[in-house]
Amino acid sequence: VEVVTAAELAGVVTFAISGVLAVSVRLDWFGVVVVGIVTALGGGTIRDVILDDTPVVWVEDLGYLAAAAAGAALATPLARWLATGSRRRFEEALQVADAAGLALFVVVGAQIALDVGFGAGVAIVSAVVTGIGGGLIRDVLAARTPMVLAGEFYATAALGGAIVYVTLDRAASVPELPAAVAGALTVFVLRVLGIRRRWTVPAITR
Amino acid sequence: VEVVTAAELAGVVTFAISGVLAVSVRLDWFGVVVVGIVTALGGGTIRDVILDDTPVVWVEDLGYLAAAAAGAALATPLARWLATGSRRRFEEALQVADAAGLALFVVVGAQIALDVGFGAGVAIVSAVVTGIGGGLIRDVLAARTPMVLAGEFYATAALGGAIVYVTLDRAASVPELPAAVAGALTVFVLRVLGIRRRWTVPAITR
Amino acid sequence: VEVVTAAELAGVVTFAISGVLAVSVRLDWFGVVVVGIVTALGGGTIRDVILDDTPVVWVEDLGYLAAAAAGAALATPLARWLATGSRRRFEEALQVADAAGLALFVVVGAQIALDVGFGAGVAIVSAVVTGIGGGLIRDVLAARTPMVLAGEFYATAALGGAIVYVTLDRAASVPELPAAVAGALTVFVLRVLGIRRRWTVPAITR
Repeated sequence: VEVVTAAELAGVVTFAISGVLAVSVRLDWFGVVVVGIVTALGGGTIRDVILDDTPVVWVEDLGYLAAAAAGAALATPLARWLATGSRRRFEEALQVADAAGLALFVVVGAQIALDVGFGAGVAIVSAVVTGIGGGLIRDVLAARTPMVLAGEFYATAALGGAIVYVTLDRAASVPELPAAVAGALTVFVLRVLGIRRRWTVPAITR
Repeated sequence: VEVVTAAELAGVVTFAISGVLAVSVRLDWFGVVVVGIVTALGGGTIRDVILDDTPVVWVEDLGYLAAAAAGAALATPLARWLATGSRRRFEEALQVADAAGLALFVVVGAQIALDVGFGAGVAIVSAVVTGIGGGLIRDVLAARTPMVLAGEFYATAALGGAIVYVTLDRAASVPELPAAVAGALTVFVLRVLGIRRRWTVPAITR
Repeated sequence: VEVVTAAELAGVVTFAISGVLAVSVRLDWFGVVVVGIVTALGGGTIRDVILDDTPVVWVEDLGYLAAAAAGAALATPLARWLATGSRRRFEEALQVADAAGLALFVVVGAQIALDVGFGAGVAIVSAVVTGIGGGLIRDVLAARTPMVLAGEFYATAALGGAIVYVTLDRAASVPELPAAVAGALTVFVLRVLGIRRRWTVPAITR
């Protein structure tokens, strides 16, 4: 449990950083903190409200909020510092860290739904909402159509890993730990492959 | 009850289709599914969260989610297939179906609030939120000011029917079924008349 | 308690008016009412949902909803009437009233969290969410990046007052009334000074 929590906090920090760096609108210090918090904790908040698993997780443990704020605070100096030299390498590292955060959030989202007693279908929805909900609200705040709905190979990776985890855990009776690792690895590998090979999801609407 | 549920699922499918077709931004397959689900189930979700009638309806019965996803999946091929020939006729049919869905959602929204024990005022708000909430979130995701707030004769139709239903049910002690039919018919007729006669609601702000 | 409620209703009316006047998109009568209600009651609604203090406050007491709708209805004629003459003076009066509303909402938001049994951290978050949440949703509906995230000295004033109130109430054991007055005054003075002296919060992102 301790390990999972440490990993979760690392995921929160990472999501906050990548959330702030993904936004291209002008923000002041408060805007940066809000965008970081919303990106990192928005998905889990929607999940908790919809599953009625309230109060939401970051109200019960302020460590999440502190981690998100810390990530947001770090984002801008970090980006500036690394820009002198290899901005590109930093962005790649960040994308990999973001993929790891996504993998973790997807599995945690599914686990929470299953623990509360919901079935496989709700668990998969919960996994995807936890993984992508934060980025979705972030883009709404930035007044643009969410990236995750329009071409990026992100939600598909989350969905793939969620299905793998829930299927192993429920249908195949694989113990929780290996099922979780397999699900998280699926998300991570799909997402990193998607970035490396520039996979895009074709547009359907005009 | 069985009939209502069948009608509700039909309403969900219709809302998902009209939601996807109303959006003019580029979406991939996941975006289409999310927009369909959000349009069809967003209003009911806000209602359930605000009334604290949780877990929200589609978490308790995944049929709603499946119906919304099916509607979203159907939307694009349906539109393409019918475009060869009479796109216009298809759009008219869709608007009528959407009006029927709106009528149903408004009455269901009011009924749920009354069943949970709330008064007439909350029931009317619940009816309108259930009817228009989904389209509102859809437009927020598409980064545009919601159509329902700016000129279309849509919310007014919903409000009119909600007042008719709640008044008949509470103040006039009309039995539930005729009250519901009268409320739904009010919404439907007002909305269809609004489309046919191109009624618009005048802008108030600049 | 009676006094607080009267003040709260005044705050709701003020927020609804300033919310409608802050929006620069075309809205019909329904849009105006929705924007007024959302600006006035949106922050409290998010707070209640996140703290699981549901049903949300305006469902339990429709007076809030009526006050918000009244404020929205007043906004346009009021602005027009005063435009003949001293629009500028009206806008200044409105900003001062809005600052008073913000001060009140911040303290009420903190108080509710403390009353429900949460600690100082959650109370500060609750205060800020209650104060700025409505304006944030309003701007999302108007499809623009929320003003409160980008340069205006608004959230900083709210945060300052929240910290003052919660610190006095918890750490310094000051009785509730003077603590609340000190917190509200801090918000009000900071906000009014910010307007008068044109304080802005520097942008951090590009």
